[in-house]
Amino acid sequence: MPHYTAPTKDMAFVLHETLRISELSTRGYADLDADFTSAVLEEAGKLAMDVTAPLNPVGDEQGCTLENGVVRTPDGFKEAFETVAEGGWMGLDMPEEYGGQGMPYIVQTAVGEMFSSANMAFNMYQGLAHGAMSAIVAHGTDAQKQTYLPNMIAGKWGGTMNLTEPHCGTDLGLMRTKAAPQEDGSYKISGQKIWISAGEHDMVDNIVHLVLAKIPGEPDDIKGVSLFIVPKFLVNEDGSLGARNDLSCGGLEKKMGIHGNATCVMNYDGATGYLIGEKNKGMRAMFTMMNEARIGVGLQGYAQGVVAYQNAAAFAQDRLQGRDVTGAKAPEKPADPIIVHPDVRRNLMEQKAFVEGARAFTFWGATMIDQAVREDDAEAEAMISLLTPIIKGFLTDKGFETAVNAQQTLGGSGFTREWGLEQFVRDARITMIYEGTNGVQSLDLVGRKLGLNGGKTVMAFFELVKSFIKDNTEHEALNTHFLTPLKAASKDLQAAGMYFMQNGMKNPNNALSGSYDFMHLFGQVCMGLVWAKMGKAAYAALDAGASDTGFYEAKIATGKYYMARCLPITATHLARIESGADTVMALEAEQF
Amino acid sequence: MPHYTAPTKDMAFVLHETLRISELSTRGYADLDADFTSAVLEEAGKLAMDVTAPLNPVGDEQGCTLENGVVRTPDGFKEAFETVAEGGWMGLDMPEEYGGQGMPYIVQTAVGEMFSSANMAFNMYQGLAHGAMSAIVAHGTDAQKQTYLPNMIAGKWGGTMNLTEPHCGTDLGLMRTKAAPQEDGSYKISGQKIWISAGEHDMVDNIVHLVLAKIPGEPDDIKGVSLFIVPKFLVNEDGSLGARNDLSCGGLEKKMGIHGNATCVMNYDGATGYLIGEKNKGMRAMFTMMNEARIGVGLQGYAQGVVAYQNAAAFAQDRLQGRDVTGAKAPEKPADPIIVHPDVRRNLMEQKAFVEGARAFTFWGATMIDQAVREDDAEAEAMISLLTPIIKGFLTDKGFETAVNAQQTLGGSGFTREWGLEQFVRDARITMIYEGTNGVQSLDLVGRKLGLNGGKTVMAFFELVKSFIKDNTEHEALNTHFLTPLKAASKDLQAAGMYFMQNGMKNPNNALSGSYDFMHLFGQVCMGLVWAKMGKAAYAALDAGASDTGFYEAKIATGKYYMARCLPITATHLARIESGADTVMALEAEQF
Repeated sequence: MPHYTAPTKDMAFVLHETLRISELSTRGYADLDADFTSAVLEEAGKLAMDVTAPLNPVGDEQGCTLENGVVRTPDGFKEAFETVAEGGWMGLDMPEEYGGQGMPYIVQTAVGEMFSSANMAFNMYQGLAHGAMSAIVAHGTDAQKQTYLPNMIAGKWGGTMNLTEPHCGTDLGLMRTKAAPQEDGSYKISGQKIWISAGEHDMVDNIVHLVLAKIPGEPDDIKGVSLFIVPKFLVNEDGSLGARNDLSCGGLEKKMGIHGNATCVMNYDGATGYLIGEKNKGMRAMFTMMNEARIGVGLQGYAQGVVAYQNAAAFAQDRLQGRDVTGAKAPEKPADPIIVHPDVRRNLMEQKAFVEGARAFTFWGATMIDQAVREDDAEAEAMISLLTPIIKGFLTDKGFETAVNAQQTLGGSGFTREWGLEQFVRDARITMIYEGTNGVQSLDLVGRKLGLNGGKTVMAFFELVKSFIKDNTEHEALNTHFLTPLKAASKDLQAAGMYFMQNGMKNPNNALSGSYDFMHLFGQVCMGLVWAKMGKAAYAALDAGASDTGFYEAKIATGKYYMARCLPITATHLARIESGADTVMALEAEQF
Repeated sequence: MPHYTAPTKDMAFVLHETLRISELSTRGYADLDADFTSAVLEEAGKLAMDVTAPLNPVGDEQGCTLENGVVRTPDGFKEAFETVAEGGWMGLDMPEEYGGQGMPYIVQTAVGEMFSSANMAFNMYQGLAHGAMSAIVAHGTDAQKQTYLPNMIAGKWGGTMNLTEPHCGTDLGLMRTKAAPQEDGSYKISGQKIWISAGEHDMVDNIVHLVLAKIPGEPDDIKGVSLFIVPKFLVNEDGSLGARNDLSCGGLEKKMGIHGNATCVMNYDGATGYLIGEKNKGMRAMFTMMNEARIGVGLQGYAQGVVAYQNAAAFAQDRLQGRDVTGAKAPEKPADPIIVHPDVRRNLMEQKAFVEGARAFTFWGATMIDQAVREDDAEAEAMISLLTPIIKGFLTDKGFETAVNAQQTLGGSGFTREWGLEQFVRDARITMIYEGTNGVQSLDLVGRKLGLNGGKTVMAFFELVKSFIKDNTEHEALNTHFLTPLKAASKDLQAAGMYFMQNGMKNPNNALSGSYDFMHLFGQVCMGLVWAKMGKAAYAALDAGASDTGFYEAKIATGKYYMARCLPITATHLARIESGADTVMALEAEQF
């Protein structure tokens, strides 16, 4: 069975030495000193290691079952859900007035990584509830907040997001679900939604569905989509549960991974729903939550890489096979542990350098969310909007790749169920697809985000990289191993942007044919930047005489690996982008 | 449910227009004209499409079950196996004197691709029997051949290869299975073997296990390993089945994919075995089959890419979502098919360009096998030895990646079981692992094959690329779109080889840290070369006024995509290689 170790030490390094969060001026951050975050993260880590991680293979093996409209979750899930709820983790970053703990999103992010690594399918139940809560916090009336939030924050009620229908996923304008206005101001919701994670299950008393639908007579396209609260059980005036609403789970998807999470077909048969936010502004309401939701998926992707890497490293230290080519390392044993072999190490370094960089990248993004939300900072809002499709698309592609790499470290054992690596691969795979496929993320990046504020936001990003390089050039080691390769990668990114500007106008396909590579190129530069920041922090700690030299030296060595071996791929992405649309668009559709 | 279409037209293009096999002087090739191969491939294709492909999801869903030592295969497998056997497909390339059809390996390869695409798990039953047959053909006595081959070729008996034990996979010197000599010249085999594909099943009357074991008193390392024939039922003098041998299936592995194939724990409890080949030369006997076996796995890898791509292309032509950014393509429909979107095309082109190139690469390799075996051609033998780890390692990595890409084309549907893409991904995953992990392939390439014949073989490869370029430079379009990028890629490969020569001597880790990238770099150059050959063939057909211009134009366009978008990654591989061992080897084992 696989194991999971909460990476609290590395998280502390990112939070306090790299990002130095308690020195940031964001409201609430002053409280986030190292002692405080350590206490929170240690506690969450224990829960992840002791309670939810052991249920991960159980959930995969058993899956969910649907009988007479009732979804049964795997053994132990309900008890674990209660334990998580009792610990107050459901409302960690929710408003205190409704029972939440009011912590910044950065704390939620760090905790979320651990919960996702430990048991992604299980954590999605609270993840979806969190999404629904965020929508209510952002767009609900006071009465709606009062009606739903306390029980959701307490973990007594769940929540979902209902977007997809059989014929529409990315293109939500094609939506058919209808919301018929009633005299009392409510609506009757009718239609079928699919792929609804946590749509129905046995761990809570009520489920608060947030459903996109069209009101008849309003525009029959994306501009006529509104958002509705549609609870499984209606809620009485006194807050008690009332009648069962006219909605039901019509089926569960059989799928590649996240078996422990119920992916439901949801049928709404004139169910009572309540408009949330403005009429016809349903997509806008969704989009305000999109940054958080997509960052959450990016986090899931690399979090599977984290736990997969841990198990690969342990296996490589343990498995005896062959001898070190430069001389036996364990002559007293029948063979050396496979970690002596350069290609095993290359693979492990690839994994380690990615997951540590991804953590820093995502946490950095979380600080921008806090700055945007807590300080109404438009620049931070714009910057995280720019980076969100990258965090989602790049980190999930690479997180999956990392899980595959980790599986490879185990050889044949990696393919068997008992070692658990293959589950991480299967679970990670969905992160590249849901919450907008990674292709859609790349479109969002190139088609929408590059032009944000007339291009000022992307220029601000370049400025940020440039000034970090400029401010730190005098540190010779940092400059040689980190800043120089970062500068080269950043140059490739700017050249790609220039190519789009010069060629995308006359033919938008020239930009769109390169969007996926651009997303990866941009992701690499972000990784290069955060690795340079971590390198700086590690050198600083060593210069200051930190006692744990091994940790900081390993951090620098891992960063050097990233800069020397991972970052150079930016040149390939640029070459692909600059080859333009011709070869991509040459065939007729029927020639495929 | 997924579909499969036998790519007979593309195979004919590779065989007859690109490789021009019937013009080669290899014994038996003169018979292989287009009419003949078409007849064979159409027949095999029908079997694959109509008989085995429909059983692919069945096998995945049902898997195999073990009860009282008997392994039951999924519904329909036994009947399909009989149909395949009756068609004579088991012994397609086996000697005619034992009932085979005596066809060259190139024909077996083309047929094998179709069978693998259609149902990889099912095809492995005959694949393993084929491996055992090849061993008997190559190393068995006449009596052994007469005893086992006819029934195996007829599909009445199966076969397996037994190498791995719980504590030894790559490092077979650690093997513990013993073979105790008996007075009658036979041996008593005792030990446990694991991961034995097709180790036990209900489709045949007998199973001929080929088992590696050590004879007590002989060297207790890799030099003391011998190969034995250990049949499930002993065979009487008259060829009838005798006593049940003392061996049994002790368990089935639960695994990520290829559920339809029984992966067995095999227990040998003093089972009667017969030495095949020379004593203590078991590894050599294995290695003579290794080229074929590894090419067979490379083929499996890209074959999963083939069928995955077919389903992705069909989905993209059918699924309506969004509008072409340059103007609606299907204004009469609610949305355009997603194949209009540049990023969907980019992904499809990536898949298409890979699978077509991989087919040509593998078929080219198969012609070398034939030339080596049928003509005792040492140069062909050396060249295919050099290319084998690349065909295995590179094509399975990319075949898996292609299946993942194809799955991505389907968005959420790709993650569900019903569309079948996720099965192709899970099945393809094993090809990167078995028959030597891809890391081991890269070691074989750099540690062993580069030095083959004092480096003459790799130099011959470079010469081959160089002379192809030189001979065709005057074809302007070919030169611009194919030869120029091929030259650049080949230069990167040579630079990488040079780096190894200059730095591998003083520290072998400098070479071994780059072995994986070198395998991929080499694979890219091979793909570039075969794409250039296909480009040449397609231009020639158009110049000669071929009627099916669409096919040849698509071939050229797809080749241009490969050269412009895939090949440039050689520069990244070179950069990684040239960064050397320092960053790879920097950490202590316990710092991971």
